Amino acid sequence: MPSEFDLIARYFRPLAGPGALDLLDDAAVLAPPPGRDLVIAVDAMVAGVHFLPDDPPDLVARKLLRVNLSDLAAMAAAPLGYLTTISAPIGTGEDFFQLFAAGLAQDQREFGIHLLGGDTTATAGPLTLSLTILGHVAPGEALRRAGARPGDDLWVTGTIGDGALGLAALQGRLSDPQGWLAGRYRLPQPRLALSLNGLASACLDVSDGLIQDVGHLCRAGHLAAEIDAALVPLSEAARAAGRDWLETCLTGGDDYELAFAVPPKNAAALHERAAAAGVAVTRIGRFTAGPAEVSVTQDGAPMRLTKLGWSHF
Amino acid sequence: MPSEFDLIARYFRPLAGPGALDLLDDAAVLAPPPGRDLVIAVDAMVAGVHFLPDDPPDLVARKLLRVNLSDLAAMAAAPLGYLTTISAPIGTGEDFFQLFAAGLAQDQREFGIHLLGGDTTATAGPLTLSLTILGHVAPGEALRRAGARPGDDLWVTGTIGDGALGLAALQGRLSDPQGWLAGRYRLPQPRLALSLNGLASACLDVSDGLIQDVGHLCRAGHLAAEIDAALVPLSEAARAAGRDWLETCLTGGDDYELAFAVPPKNAAALHERAAAAGVAVTRIGRFTAGPAEVSVTQDGAPMRLTKLGWSHF
Repeated sequence: MPSEFDLIARYFRPLAGPGALDLLDDAAVLAPPPGRDLVIAVDAMVAGVHFLPDDPPDLVARKLLRVNLSDLAAMAAAPLGYLTTISAPIGTGEDFFQLFAAGLAQDQREFGIHLLGGDTTATAGPLTLSLTILGHVAPGEALRRAGARPGDDLWVTGTIGDGALGLAALQGRLSDPQGWLAGRYRLPQPRLALSLNGLASACLDVSDGLIQDVGHLCRAGHLAAEIDAALVPLSEAARAAGRDWLETCLTGGDDYELAFAVPPKNAAALHERAAAAGVAVTRIGRFTAGPAEVSVTQDGAPMRLTKLGWSHF
Repeated sequence: MPSEFDLIARYFRPLAGPGALDLLDDAAVLAPPPGRDLVIAVDAMVAGVHFLPDDPPDLVARKLLRVNLSDLAAMAAAPLGYLTTISAPIGTGEDFFQLFAAGLAQDQREFGIHLLGGDTTATAGPLTLSLTILGHVAPGEALRRAGARPGDDLWVTGTIGDGALGLAALQGRLSDPQGWLAGRYRLPQPRLALSLNGLASACLDVSDGLIQDVGHLCRAGHLAAEIDAALVPLSEAARAAGRDWLETCLTGGDDYELAFAVPPKNAAALHERAAAAGVAVTRIGRFTAGPAEVSVTQDGAPMRLTKLGWSHF
């Protein structure tokens, strides 16, 4: 096994971009894009919690990067670069680092960003990762969770629930003959192409489950939301799973789709922009005046849910 | 145990500064200081590797923040804000979060910074932390590891080796009647007050052991360094430990002092600035032309070392 310094030189230095100083210094130094606000977020991922211990390292790396890119997409920000920490179980082989870096390299090309810095340590526990993403946005144009108004429609991108079903499939609890659901769990699609500035009044990315995350929009905006379960876009694979899995789709995590509020007058412009970006958007409900609550109807009747979403504690 | 969202609201929202959007959004949004370069670094800390599992949570939090502030000090940058991830073992009590946040609050006041964002997850392994620090510096003025020239003197701040001896003391391998060494291990002093811009030609912070880290300065600058062991500043407690512990002082990690190169003509100005900052500085050797190697002499003879420093793998 090479030393920590050799690992960095061999696998991570090739990923380093301008400002990273070849990962030779204590910190990265970069000139921020002039006249832009900085957007910065961090997410941690733990083997056995956010991904499966035997998930391929390149896909784990890409998911780590993508869940953070999804945070930028939620604010309609453009990506700039990232830093990552890897706490690897004692005995982790060099091949892990090689594959992990290859996954990052692939998505760096796809999303046009570079590594700025990081830290690599050992751990007696499971593989534990963090990634800090840096992006930028025109001053005052970052989309927020707060901002939805009664009468705004509630929209989502893509399809909802595939991530949770993919996890179930990988755990052997659900059939997934094409492997499509597993792919959605392992490789989210951050919706950076769809910039919602000027159209949406509020936005977030769905990571802890649709209903809970729409609840965040409600609490931030001090209003209620109604979701019509029949309108929630499900993939062909999710529909094939059947009605028994609908609640999992609505409350499971790992979608990394956007949920956002749009005044009805912007609907046509939204469709145009979504078509240009190649991202499907679907209206699934609306915001109303009232206490911050999410109500879900199914066939015109309130839907009873046993679990609202995901909390780590 | 409160939910993840309640924990954030109760303990971390009070730490949030401008740009953090009350930790209610997917990312922080901030206007970078005009006309300044950004400096950004990340470090991970794992219980059992970087701190002891029974270290008090407030001191763990402060160490996490301070090792990152030390990276800014190494580049002569000023701190701006930070993001942190906490992967807490299943069953971690609310008191941990309360104490951890109290430690951050204390050092936020001491160093004049605020929390920008973070992520809290569960883990089946040991407590695993990461912290991303954001700072700023005048364009082109960040100190680098590269830049030392033959003839420059090698200096350090503070005293060297206390961190490694403090760990030994906490593990019962060394007597520490005053608890002073343990305190140095648990609570590093980032040397932000001593801004070395314009005086030093190269700088880093000593985290993996003095000799190994001076080796980084040599490799980055393509030159050699000579250290006179008798000049290396040791604390009273380290001197009391005796000569058997000298190698541990020179090669152990966790000092978080600065090691830096200074052209001899700047020595007087350095002493003035150090006195004004209240930081002790000591010349311990010099840089010479030659292959990137660190030689240590003791009583005029080469010192034999069994270990050069710390690598995680």
